[in-house]
Amino acid sequence: MFFCALGKICNYETDRHRGGENVREARRTEVIVVGAGLAGLSAALALYDRGIDVIVLEAQSRVGGKVLSVVEDGVTVDYGAQWISPHQPRMKALLARFGLTTVPTFAKGDALYVLRGDRMRGNGDRPPLGWTGKLDLFRIRRKLDKLAGTIDPGAPWKSAAAPELDALTMETWLEKAAFSTAAKSFCRAVAEEGLCARLSEVSMLDVLWDYVSAGGVDKLMTAEDEWIAGGTQQLPAKMAERLGDAVRPDNAVRTIRWGGGQVTAYTDREAWTGRRAIVAIPPTFTNRIAYEPPLPPDRDQLCQRIGQGAVIKFVLVYDTPFWRERGWSGSAYGETGPIQTVLDGTEPGQRLGVLAAMANGGHARRLGRLGKEERKTEVLRSLARFVGEKALEPVAVYEKDWSADPWIRGGYGGRFAPGVLSEFGPSLLEPVGPIHWAGAETATVWRMYMEGALQSGERAAEEVARALEAERPAGGSAARITR
Amino acid sequence: MFFCALGKICNYETDRHRGGENVREARRTEVIVVGAGLAGLSAALALYDRGIDVIVLEAQSRVGGKVLSVVEDGVTVDYGAQWISPHQPRMKALLARFGLTTVPTFAKGDALYVLRGDRMRGNGDRPPLGWTGKLDLFRIRRKLDKLAGTIDPGAPWKSAAAPELDALTMETWLEKAAFSTAAKSFCRAVAEEGLCARLSEVSMLDVLWDYVSAGGVDKLMTAEDEWIAGGTQQLPAKMAERLGDAVRPDNAVRTIRWGGGQVTAYTDREAWTGRRAIVAIPPTFTNRIAYEPPLPPDRDQLCQRIGQGAVIKFVLVYDTPFWRERGWSGSAYGETGPIQTVLDGTEPGQRLGVLAAMANGGHARRLGRLGKEERKTEVLRSLARFVGEKALEPVAVYEKDWSADPWIRGGYGGRFAPGVLSEFGPSLLEPVGPIHWAGAETATVWRMYMEGALQSGERAAEEVARALEAERPAGGSAARITR
Repeated sequence: MFFCALGKICNYETDRHRGGENVREARRTEVIVVGAGLAGLSAALALYDRGIDVIVLEAQSRVGGKVLSVVEDGVTVDYGAQWISPHQPRMKALLARFGLTTVPTFAKGDALYVLRGDRMRGNGDRPPLGWTGKLDLFRIRRKLDKLAGTIDPGAPWKSAAAPELDALTMETWLEKAAFSTAAKSFCRAVAEEGLCARLSEVSMLDVLWDYVSAGGVDKLMTAEDEWIAGGTQQLPAKMAERLGDAVRPDNAVRTIRWGGGQVTAYTDREAWTGRRAIVAIPPTFTNRIAYEPPLPPDRDQLCQRIGQGAVIKFVLVYDTPFWRERGWSGSAYGETGPIQTVLDGTEPGQRLGVLAAMANGGHARRLGRLGKEERKTEVLRSLARFVGEKALEPVAVYEKDWSADPWIRGGYGGRFAPGVLSEFGPSLLEPVGPIHWAGAETATVWRMYMEGALQSGERAAEEVARALEAERPAGGSAARITR
Repeated sequence: MFFCALGKICNYETDRHRGGENVREARRTEVIVVGAGLAGLSAALALYDRGIDVIVLEAQSRVGGKVLSVVEDGVTVDYGAQWISPHQPRMKALLARFGLTTVPTFAKGDALYVLRGDRMRGNGDRPPLGWTGKLDLFRIRRKLDKLAGTIDPGAPWKSAAAPELDALTMETWLEKAAFSTAAKSFCRAVAEEGLCARLSEVSMLDVLWDYVSAGGVDKLMTAEDEWIAGGTQQLPAKMAERLGDAVRPDNAVRTIRWGGGQVTAYTDREAWTGRRAIVAIPPTFTNRIAYEPPLPPDRDQLCQRIGQGAVIKFVLVYDTPFWRERGWSGSAYGETGPIQTVLDGTEPGQRLGVLAAMANGGHARRLGRLGKEERKTEVLRSLARFVGEKALEPVAVYEKDWSADPWIRGGYGGRFAPGVLSEFGPSLLEPVGPIHWAGAETATVWRMYMEGALQSGERAAEEVARALEAERPAGGSAARITR
């Protein structure tokens, strides 16, 4: 109880929003999902498919989270997550369910590499390294596989080697594990993009968790083999469409209150009471919600320590896919940045050429501090180092700095500094009362990928469905609220 | 603009709280301070002393932040910050201003040390080390002083050595810098308490920033020389009393909106509009407020990465200060924990004996996961290793786990993992529009101490006063709102 501004006594225990002046009945559902990114939508859809009543509260006015496609001057620009692997069964099934198709990423010709200042041709199976570099890369890979074999992707903090691996950054590990500067350079070029962070920021245990969750290097090399025709955003849009008005945009959850077998979420506009909640937003954002009662100390301290990576994605449109004429696929990887990864994103049958170029981690943050024109100049110069001077003449340049998005604040996901995962790891997945956690950081397959987001949502939905089943009164199926 | 639940159009640009149903006029002040810990109160008092109208919005129902004294069964128990150094002029002046006095920390007799499993006697000037250990300690100190000399406490990220020092944890640095295991053990015992963290969590640049801000090892050794008679809480209470009803408890700030030369803070109960705001809460909490417009990416990403340390403070009451009879001062330092630091907190003239015992960092978190009785048993056993079996028979045991406090969530302050300070440092102090930052993490003298909190508040108040002065219409003193 407290005295509100008007002097009335307000009771926190009722289904009324705090604040006295703002009394409001909560509407009822079975499960409240916070966040309409792929994780939240996946959780909601899994519950919906089981006939469980669900509501999805989304802060932004759109669904999709880190997926965002916009048609700009006739070109579909994917500002966020775009690529998938044929080894991602959830993505494949969901695309099929909604009648969406994929385009194979253009791969005719060579990939380009800029390593230690030199431009080289190669590709995934044929890295541009001399024989010592190749031998070293083979050894690094064997070491990674050996370490990965010791890690349970469901609970990496339980591995015997966890404390030791979690005391190292990937930078420190790589310095010791590799003997050839060429191989180190190659590893940096490919790893920094995936992690969206400097290798010196990230615990080796965190890196290995991603690695083992994706199924090792062979699978990871397929992560960008396909993309979704017509824009990735169609997927969350179709998922949301299926859920109908259960998806509530412009509803940032400010407070979650729970007790007595129920949980209530308050936004600035709505209040919903259910039996369980699934919070499917990045860990750092889970701490921006007020919980009553408060979260356990470990959970709060964990999420104080998971900084989001950083990425600016640039989509560059040229009058033709000129790189193809020169026998280059459009795929390019660089050590020094600011652009470290480039992929061809030209739609089949399109006359124009489209390149997607990513700046990640420290490079993204540095570019983000520049003015727009200065940034564009740097990006074009960086691209020119891969595909030549023609890169300086785009028809159009689109960009999105995900760290500047107030509801995303980074990408592709939250990363663990040394010491965090081994001490606080269990709190990442462990429900707190009726509150369950989802999001790509909690995935145990294809962590930080769209596939991982879907799996995390399905896993949380499964937890919730089991809990609801267990709570059901004995002696037959209870009456349920159905939409 | 958005459509509220009632279908009305609400305009974000007015001085009205969001939500449509909850329209409310903001009251006016000149400066809004967020947080009534020592930093916020210090800022408010500095402005008040200059005749500037100020309001302090505090989330909790009490003032003081990490200062909390409670009289328990006739004994004043200081659950939080307690000790000061004679070399802390702001604390000294403020205590004098409010007629408060200090007690010298009992120092007759030896301090006790448990290092590498052995109990030893010694004291600050006479560490319990053999000649190689003492030599090594001397060398470590010289190295620290040399490194500290390269660091500007106003902007440590500008030092030439910053990137290198920020790539190391203190653990890694110490392993390289020391040759004697005894000296390492001694350094760990004293540093982990001060940092409230495992040495493997904290960047060496962060450690050196603390070190240089306090004035080096000689000053740091005086940090616990005195404590405040009758409880530290008297200080924030007197500061708040001076500010009168400008201090508004039970008012957690949820949203800060700014633009057009003014800033408005919204709590669940009140709204205040002023010309400037000072946010004086731990960095991780600054990200739990919604800002409109949003904070710059660097500021948000910085505060995603500053995890609070951890501390449980135990206050143990015995029927007599039995340790004194054995020639021990009550000061004790241990490497292995869970208790790493003990100090005598017996009030002069008191018949009872009082020990304050701290578990920090990983030890605090581990103890926090235990049940209360199990924790008490571990703590008493740990104390017995210092002062003997008599420690097992307290009259009373009081404890506070600061990580469990929903508005503190750790202690003594936020720490920087490697790589954070050198990249994001400037955002720690840089105002965002009319929003200035205070708090012990932003201090440039005696960081993480009460003295630092005061200095951070004064510095922010100075920034604000200068800004208000600069904005004042030319041609004489403008009319000002005065209380």
